[in-house]
Amino acid sequence: MQMMELFDRLYPINRSITGDGVRETLRILNEYAPIAQTEYPTGTVCFDWTVPKEWNVRAAYVKDGSGRVLIDFSRNNLHLMGYSAPFRGFVSREQLMAHLHTREDLPDAIPYVISYYREDWGFCVEHRRLPEFTDDWYEVVIDADLADGRMTIGEGFIQGRTDEEILLSTYVCHPSMAINELSGPLVQTFVYRYLLERQGDLKYSYRFLYVPETIGSLLYLSRHGDDLKRRVAAGYVVTCAGHDGGFTYKRSKRGDTLADKAALHALERSGKPFKTVEWNPFGSDERQYCSEAFRLPVGSLMRTMYGEYPEYHTSLDDRSLLSERSLQDSVAMYADVIETLEANEIYACTHLHGEPKLDKRGLYPYTGGTRSKAEQRKVSAITWLLAFSDGERDLIGVADKMNAIGGMNVTCRELREAAEMLKAHSLLRRIAGSGSEAEAEAAYVLEMQARG
Amino acid sequence: MQMMELFDRLYPINRSITGDGVRETLRILNEYAPIAQTEYPTGTVCFDWTVPKEWNVRAAYVKDGSGRVLIDFSRNNLHLMGYSAPFRGFVSREQLMAHLHTREDLPDAIPYVISYYREDWGFCVEHRRLPEFTDDWYEVVIDADLADGRMTIGEGFIQGRTDEEILLSTYVCHPSMAINELSGPLVQTFVYRYLLERQGDLKYSYRFLYVPETIGSLLYLSRHGDDLKRRVAAGYVVTCAGHDGGFTYKRSKRGDTLADKAALHALERSGKPFKTVEWNPFGSDERQYCSEAFRLPVGSLMRTMYGEYPEYHTSLDDRSLLSERSLQDSVAMYADVIETLEANEIYACTHLHGEPKLDKRGLYPYTGGTRSKAEQRKVSAITWLLAFSDGERDLIGVADKMNAIGGMNVTCRELREAAEMLKAHSLLRRIAGSGSEAEAEAAYVLEMQARG
Amino acid sequence: MQMMELFDRLYPINRSITGDGVRETLRILNEYAPIAQTEYPTGTVCFDWTVPKEWNVRAAYVKDGSGRVLIDFSRNNLHLMGYSAPFRGFVSREQLMAHLHTREDLPDAIPYVISYYREDWGFCVEHRRLPEFTDDWYEVVIDADLADGRMTIGEGFIQGRTDEEILLSTYVCHPSMAINELSGPLVQTFVYRYLLERQGDLKYSYRFLYVPETIGSLLYLSRHGDDLKRRVAAGYVVTCAGHDGGFTYKRSKRGDTLADKAALHALERSGKPFKTVEWNPFGSDERQYCSEAFRLPVGSLMRTMYGEYPEYHTSLDDRSLLSERSLQDSVAMYADVIETLEANEIYACTHLHGEPKLDKRGLYPYTGGTRSKAEQRKVSAITWLLAFSDGERDLIGVADKMNAIGGMNVTCRELREAAEMLKAHSLLRRIAGSGSEAEAEAAYVLEMQARG
Repeated sequence: MQMMELFDRLYPINRSITGDGVRETLRILNEYAPIAQTEYPTGTVCFDWTVPKEWNVRAAYVKDGSGRVLIDFSRNNLHLMGYSAPFRGFVSREQLMAHLHTREDLPDAIPYVISYYREDWGFCVEHRRLPEFTDDWYEVVIDADLADGRMTIGEGFIQGRTDEEILLSTYVCHPSMAINELSGPLVQTFVYRYLLERQGDLKYSYRFLYVPETIGSLLYLSRHGDDLKRRVAAGYVVTCAGHDGGFTYKRSKRGDTLADKAALHALERSGKPFKTVEWNPFGSDERQYCSEAFRLPVGSLMRTMYGEYPEYHTSLDDRSLLSERSLQDSVAMYADVIETLEANEIYACTHLHGEPKLDKRGLYPYTGGTRSKAEQRKVSAITWLLAFSDGERDLIGVADKMNAIGGMNVTCRELREAAEMLKAHSLLRRIAGSGSEAEAEAAYVLEMQARG
Repeated sequence: MQMMELFDRLYPINRSITGDGVRETLRILNEYAPIAQTEYPTGTVCFDWTVPKEWNVRAAYVKDGSGRVLIDFSRNNLHLMGYSAPFRGFVSREQLMAHLHTREDLPDAIPYVISYYREDWGFCVEHRRLPEFTDDWYEVVIDADLADGRMTIGEGFIQGRTDEEILLSTYVCHPSMAINELSGPLVQTFVYRYLLERQGDLKYSYRFLYVPETIGSLLYLSRHGDDLKRRVAAGYVVTCAGHDGGFTYKRSKRGDTLADKAALHALERSGKPFKTVEWNPFGSDERQYCSEAFRLPVGSLMRTMYGEYPEYHTSLDDRSLLSERSLQDSVAMYADVIETLEANEIYACTHLHGEPKLDKRGLYPYTGGTRSKAEQRKVSAITWLLAFSDGERDLIGVADKMNAIGGMNVTCRELREAAEMLKAHSLLRRIAGSGSEAEAEAAYVLEMQARG
Repeated sequence: MQMMELFDRLYPINRSITGDGVRETLRILNEYAPIAQTEYPTGTVCFDWTVPKEWNVRAAYVKDGSGRVLIDFSRNNLHLMGYSAPFRGFVSREQLMAHLHTREDLPDAIPYVISYYREDWGFCVEHRRLPEFTDDWYEVVIDADLADGRMTIGEGFIQGRTDEEILLSTYVCHPSMAINELSGPLVQTFVYRYLLERQGDLKYSYRFLYVPETIGSLLYLSRHGDDLKRRVAAGYVVTCAGHDGGFTYKRSKRGDTLADKAALHALERSGKPFKTVEWNPFGSDERQYCSEAFRLPVGSLMRTMYGEYPEYHTSLDDRSLLSERSLQDSVAMYADVIETLEANEIYACTHLHGEPKLDKRGLYPYTGGTRSKAEQRKVSAITWLLAFSDGERDLIGVADKMNAIGGMNVTCRELREAAEMLKAHSLLRRIAGSGSEAEAEAAYVLEMQARG
């Protein structure tokens, strides 16, 4: 119950794009993996946007004429519209109704409503409870601060053998909802932990961003966008990663980046159901990462995605929608994608005049006509690698050929082992490029030898 | 019954590639929209072809031995083979049969047969009537002129804000048949009338050609082909536009021109059934317009096309196959295509670093989580335009993306309104190009403001 | 029974990659078509490979303790593992078993096993006979030579009007099996005979290789690879050409070469069932011909291919799997492909301004509206050729357009006749290129005129 324990600690916190809820969330996550907090003052300009005032709430409620509490923020932080300005006073029924949000289509749900960029106040309540609002006058109290302050961004990092980066980004601005969005920070943090254990053994460096959605990624891009452009080899927005069942992969805007190829390679070979969604301008921070000035190779690997489950953006998006197992499955799939990226390389066959003689190098059985399944699989990998490693096609590409033409379901990692064997025999050479420096190469060879 | 009245006036006229029937047809059409007639003398060379002699018929009939009239041109001008040379004399049954054309597969039909380029004479008759020809001798009279004269071409024109042109071309060389071909001149003339009402408000200039098929378009190309090459942005051959039911779009030879994209955009969004046919060397004047020396962006928008209905090229292709409504539907579809062309532009997003902040410009609701369908549609258009306007993709292309990825059925015209709104906020700029000069731009903005 | 008689003469011979069996096979084939033998001594280096010792067997058997012959090479040469080293002695049951190969999944089959490149010995036997091996000791005799000698390659050639070549290659290294591999040499030799009759009338030159698989094609490439690279326009590995039923075409590695286009053109128009297989590194000598240093346009036209029938590489691959008719059908399909190659040319239309006037050249009926099926087919060919002959698209490409767009199933050969007619009228000109020199052109015209 490791992930669900963390879930239960984080769930009640009132997060928004600024405020102590974000800081507290990042502080707790920091117990699991090192996350540095950086603060940006109200008024900081990032491209077309400006960091808003900081919002913190002490209490908020609506009472009826007889003093009975009808709505109470302390019961569920979704009751208060996000970024509601401080307010204290008596309002008429009509006035209250103008500030009350419900979802007629989901009468049992408290809707999630926000107004970050225009000062206003509001309450959200279950539609079925509207008949309770029969009095003429109501007391409204929003005991909150909406004032100059700071916006908080969390960031983790693991240095790999190269400076090329894999970027994971999630958001910590949603109050008490489970799938969207606690699953993202939870899964990202446990992927981070997985990689901490692989530390010292990683080709890529890894960056983990915990941002308020949109404004946070924009702010980070405004400060570090050019660095990311130089360094990011692949990236994923981690969101809606909590449901059981199949996966959803939303492609990067370019559509055929390394991020896309690695994610689809892992998904296709996982045997698990998944669907692919083309990049489109509705979604999360991939909208910013993929904007024209940056065009980062960033997609998004999800389970059931935002907007595709009925509880989305309401209080019904709660603990019952996810489980330790579903969250761990998401972590495992991310790990698969990452191992695909780590294993992927480009090789070029050095022997161009017909096939090289494999048996004299111990790479092929001497006696024709008698091969075991395992031998056949190994010989397959070797033979396809020699035929299709042309200095441009990477291992994912060779695996795709094997799958499309030969109907063979081989993973990038299997091919990597076979490729290194061929490299040891000077039949393949590794093409410098994606995270593959001489130093990295040497390290990998040592590692493989150590594994035997 | 506006179009059918015109139909009834034009139907009985004996049209061919030359002669008074063409002139009379164009004179009547000129009552509906201004059409200038130009005449080219017999012997005029156009590329590989030469304008033939002019043909006019006063009377033509076949009588049997007892003087009974068996075939009479005055009953149906299809009875006389087109371009039959003058003839007067008694012929044996065998001789007559060698000059008699029937359609065994359609025994009730008078076939449509012509011999423009070799002097000959002939009659066409219903196959079921052959048993009537039992006499040994027949009197044949063809009281006609086939002599040096002139070939007539009709031309209409509307000047738009730019000199780029949309070309419509139809043919006026077929005698009494309804679909092929009176529907073409009828529909083209009513599209012309539609555009006359839009005069002063049009981006493109419009040219309307009424030619004898093949020889006429070749002649026009031989005189004006280089101008058309410079000026024509899109064009359509208007033919077989009379049937009820679905549409047929035959692509230009290049296959992906603006003509093709606009026609398919309009057809796809019309909700009406249609099929697409690749360009091929059988058809009408698109064969000449698309020839290698010109490669004009000219397709053909039809209903049921030539060769695909059994009555084609016979007397059965008559009034019963079309109606006021079916003709008006064709006009409306052409108008849709033209409005698509008029609305289509290329924009480039000016804000490349992440998404621009829309709410501060009034382009996005301030309160998240609560949007009406109409708001959503507007926000959609804005968001996709910003994401995919890259200075090369036109509005049709953005609409195609929205349809293919987002499943949103939005028209070019809707996007144009949204794009101009974004342009007013300097978030898009219009790329000079297809009919989009500074002057045209200014005019459009004024027009849009006038519409509110 | 012409081909089956040859089959019966060749079947019993003990072929391997070297030895008298190869020489005897080539000598018999030479009775049917001229095949020169070239010999390469043991130790000859070809790229990464080396010609091994020569292997010849006089006798080989296994007797049990009582002197009863359990396995006898003279009964079926598959009983002896290919390239078994000489051996004479008594071995324990356990020792024998380590040298005995069976196929548990095919208990009635003698498996085909070889060990060319590591000295060893072995016997192959039906799995169901293993219970007979109950004695403790066995006498093993392999009376063979494995010593420095020569490897033999057979080669035929027909000079055409040009030096561009069509390459056919098959292999003669398999002992007594029918489909794989006697069908290959049989079919190749009868295609050779077909072409000998066409001698003097051929555009391309033709080369026929009979090689030991892999080592033989590598050796030939090491000596003549650069010549082949300059000269080969298309080529096919002839193997598994014996089954009745459908065909299999394995593409060249480049995938869209002339070899691929011609084979698929002929197969598609044959009306016979066939399937297409992408190039992959399992198969026969196309693996070497298509290697990166050469990238020859070589595919493989087969019936049921290696590995796809259960008897493959066992004694069950015998005479019952093929017939005179099935072999002759394979020859006929190869002939079709070759005639496609011979007929294929690239033309460019000389008349670019609209359509040329065909009737005045006698290429189109003067009277419109009345055409026979044959006339229509001829007019079709002419019209599509004029529209799509652009100096880059060959006749196969025009036929593909006619098929894809017009649904017309026309062959390259039909189009060739129409094209030459248009060329005679100067409406098309032949583009020098694929085997089309001035001299060749003249010859073809004469030939066509002679045919009337």
